[in-house]
Amino acid sequence: MTSDRRLVLASASPARLALLHQAGLAPEVVVSDVDESTVRAPRVAEQVALLASAKAAEVAKRETDALVIGADSLLEFRGQPLGKPADAAQARERWQRMAGRSGVLHTGQALFDVRDGAVVSRDIAVASTVVYFTTPTAAELEAYLATGEPLAVAGAFTLDGLGAPFVRRVEGDPAAVVGLSLTVLRTQLSKRGLAITDLWRR
Amino acid sequence: MTSDRRLVLASASPARLALLHQAGLAPEVVVSDVDESTVRAPRVAEQVALLASAKAAEVAKRETDALVIGADSLLEFRGQPLGKPADAAQARERWQRMAGRSGVLHTGQALFDVRDGAVVSRDIAVASTVVYFTTPTAAELEAYLATGEPLAVAGAFTLDGLGAPFVRRVEGDPAAVVGLSLTVLRTQLSKRGLAITDLWRR
Repeated sequence: MTSDRRLVLASASPARLALLHQAGLAPEVVVSDVDESTVRAPRVAEQVALLASAKAAEVAKRETDALVIGADSLLEFRGQPLGKPADAAQARERWQRMAGRSGVLHTGQALFDVRDGAVVSRDIAVASTVVYFTTPTAAELEAYLATGEPLAVAGAFTLDGLGAPFVRRVEGDPAAVVGLSLTVLRTQLSKRGLAITDLWRR
Repeated sequence: MTSDRRLVLASASPARLALLHQAGLAPEVVVSDVDESTVRAPRVAEQVALLASAKAAEVAKRETDALVIGADSLLEFRGQPLGKPADAAQARERWQRMAGRSGVLHTGQALFDVRDGAVVSRDIAVASTVVYFTTPTAAELEAYLATGEPLAVAGAFTLDGLGAPFVRRVEGDPAAVVGLSLTVLRTQLSKRGLAITDLWRR
């Protein structure tokens, strides 16, 4: 039973869009203009939930009939939230601390249901995944930093790119580490009476 | 320090090739003609190791100077090895048993180093990852079976495709579940004196 509901991704992340495409979904991307620096919460899991919700809320205002997905990810390492590194020096310094250790990647996911221009439901969930890093050699780390990839992502690593050989283990949903848990999205959709398979566009 | 060693993937799996591409590698694909039905071992982990090795060995014979990667994956569920399902009915029956439970996805990986037409080293490793399945609704399962995707893969599920919403958790290397552990490959290459970053082609 195919649904014709409009799906909107309130995130500029190419990794999130690629995940949704792989899972058969074809959302439109509408990037929010939420100022992330204004959002602060005592715990990292709460902060990604707040940010995901703020992004979904901001984009939902512009829609008339849509399911709006907001998402945000941060790596919690030794109690500190790590977003995108400011520059290569900071990425290097982080990797030197993370090497051989583990962190928790938190992804907040908000699903806002907009009908007739009003938000009729808001569902917010957080997927937290333990990520174990290898120890790159100095040469490997310099090569990785030189690609620029770690500068574009929360925690300065990827699971779906050049950084994958430096992540040896995860405990949780690997899609949430990339940027969006598809099992969480499936549950959120089912609460709105929709099967994720009804939204397939291929 | 870029290496000009030739990398060969002895596997027809598009998922394995995509993983290597994402990680910056550009192997040539040479599919082996190993008859998988002739390979039997008492444990599933040993069987994927044997199959990976047989594929690498067969392709290595045709090469003069190359690093040859052989790989094979099987899902161990309640002690039984599950490869690709024979048809939709078998995939349905498996999913009805797997739903809400976990299995172990074993991926065998062989790296054969060929120089001057001779195999100078053989390294074989197995990455075993626990995979937890959700319980698809009957309608979701039928929609998934109708795509044909579960018929093409070991264990009748994917982590990198339409099946991702039905896998709620993994414990181990998610790339090994897709088909090839990049951390294992990195270790195997390092034993040959090569950094994986030296083989990047982008």
